Amino acid sequence: MTDYIGRQLYIQEVSLRDGFQMEPTFVPTEQKVALINRLGRTGLAKIEVTSFTSPKAIPALADAETVMRQIDRGAGVQYSALVPNVRGCERALSCNVDEMNLVMSASRTHNLANLRMTPEQSIAQFTEVVRAVDGTVSINASLSTAFGCPFDGDVSLQHVLSLIGRIIDIGIRSITLCDTTGMANPTQVQVLCAAAKASWPNAIFTAHFHNTRSMGLANAMAALMAGIDRFDASLGGLGGCPFAPGASGNVCTEDMVHMFHAMGCPTGIDLGALVEIARGLPRMVGHDVPGQIMKAGPFNRRYPPPEWLNELDLG
Amino acid sequence: MTDYIGRQLYIQEVSLRDGFQMEPTFVPTEQKVALINRLGRTGLAKIEVTSFTSPKAIPALADAETVMRQIDRGAGVQYSALVPNVRGCERALSCNVDEMNLVMSASRTHNLANLRMTPEQSIAQFTEVVRAVDGTVSINASLSTAFGCPFDGDVSLQHVLSLIGRIIDIGIRSITLCDTTGMANPTQVQVLCAAAKASWPNAIFTAHFHNTRSMGLANAMAALMAGIDRFDASLGGLGGCPFAPGASGNVCTEDMVHMFHAMGCPTGIDLGALVEIARGLPRMVGHDVPGQIMKAGPFNRRYPPPEWLNELDLG
Repeated sequence: MTDYIGRQLYIQEVSLRDGFQMEPTFVPTEQKVALINRLGRTGLAKIEVTSFTSPKAIPALADAETVMRQIDRGAGVQYSALVPNVRGCERALSCNVDEMNLVMSASRTHNLANLRMTPEQSIAQFTEVVRAVDGTVSINASLSTAFGCPFDGDVSLQHVLSLIGRIIDIGIRSITLCDTTGMANPTQVQVLCAAAKASWPNAIFTAHFHNTRSMGLANAMAALMAGIDRFDASLGGLGGCPFAPGASGNVCTEDMVHMFHAMGCPTGIDLGALVEIARGLPRMVGHDVPGQIMKAGPFNRRYPPPEWLNELDLG
Repeated sequence: MTDYIGRQLYIQEVSLRDGFQMEPTFVPTEQKVALINRLGRTGLAKIEVTSFTSPKAIPALADAETVMRQIDRGAGVQYSALVPNVRGCERALSCNVDEMNLVMSASRTHNLANLRMTPEQSIAQFTEVVRAVDGTVSINASLSTAFGCPFDGDVSLQHVLSLIGRIIDIGIRSITLCDTTGMANPTQVQVLCAAAKASWPNAIFTAHFHNTRSMGLANAMAALMAGIDRFDASLGGLGGCPFAPGASGNVCTEDMVHMFHAMGCPTGIDLGALVEIARGLPRMVGHDVPGQIMKAGPFNRRYPPPEWLNELDLG
């Protein structure tokens, strides 16, 4: 049951995109660049830098090109960007991203609401992007609402597996299974992740969870047990869900890294450095963030015993 | 990996004791009684009603006897109370508790700081209580700091198992493994719970987790997978940790029940009723509580699609 111990895990930071896109205040470009540069030195495997969506739709990320061009490229870190359509692909190519993160939803209504396309149209755009890029840049496909849709409800295992199959047929072998609005539970995660791994043993799967319903790390653990070794997470738990005001957002990067290390799985990340950076987030975004490790410290934090213990009369 | 599906689980509510004991404001006795009476109708297996500690040490629970005497006893619900010593046992007997929850720590310094006794003295008091009660009342033993101590650090598996053995030798076969300050991780939980279950297959084990470091539900899932079917939890996640200001407290009852139901494990609990009661907590204690389901709703909550979707031109 604990055969995951010792397995190397890869942590992929999404706060700059999935977190900041939700923030009402615009984080200045130079602060974004400085944050990415600091994060690039902590041991993260990948940083999703920004999103090449319409600046009108997501003003918080209107500086996508500038950020992408100004950041330092740390050795061993992949600098990715979200690309929602062919137009975004052109913008991403113009500033030399390491990876394009294409996105579509597993459910029809969420795809329509989020991308103004049918899933068929998304698949067609994926095909077009793969052709345009022609192997010059890595491509990942993120499958939103893979564990349930806030509009359509259940999304069946068979449907998700068939979409994965179609994406792989296009020539994309790196796929993120996204629990976009925090609907997944650990049983479902184990079943879907194990089935995906078994069907496409050579594909690279990432698990992307939200903590909207407190199950973020339980789902991460379930995915780990099902053989997943790549995880998206957001510094400080930045993010949130438009459907659940006040609820938690993405799984918190430093809390997840802390758990994996405690469980005996290395990530290559300097947890102390990550927590230090996370502590700067509330000032940057103007509100508290859900991360717990920055408040509680790591599990092995020790406290001095109360002083009166020395005078205790033990009869 | 999912052989827990369909297993009946038992949820034990500790907010009245582990939650309220931390609260700076005294919750009026009649509000406690009303809360317990409502909780008693939701399907909970057990409610820890109060603690028979010194009212000087924990003024928030100074009304222990009154609460215990005034509550309705719901059918099928066990009404338990924490008993830290022989004096507490006498008080508990005087008001007809269904179960005494004896407590000691697995680590020496925490036992000294919390109970002003050595672990040896605690074991001696357990023995005395078992003799005094003489089978007339159920007894559970809670083993605090079973997954680590904020003062002493690591608590070894062997040490915890040997303490469980001594408690069982006294004649107590119901034992709670407590992660008192949220130091446990899922690997550790799987290993300890599986070892305890294997060594004493006829004992009744409860898992008691705190969410101090975001791992509460991941640890609950780990315990479930290791064969545990009884779980302590606190409505709204009420509780907290004296060592981690601002960090989360006990695992949240309604969030845990929601996860177990989603995972396919029945608890007999009316989740909607539980959430409804939890929603009254912030007013009762005067601050927000960490529970997420009361904010986000259950995973199967559906939202209407945006209205503009109807006018979407899909080319």
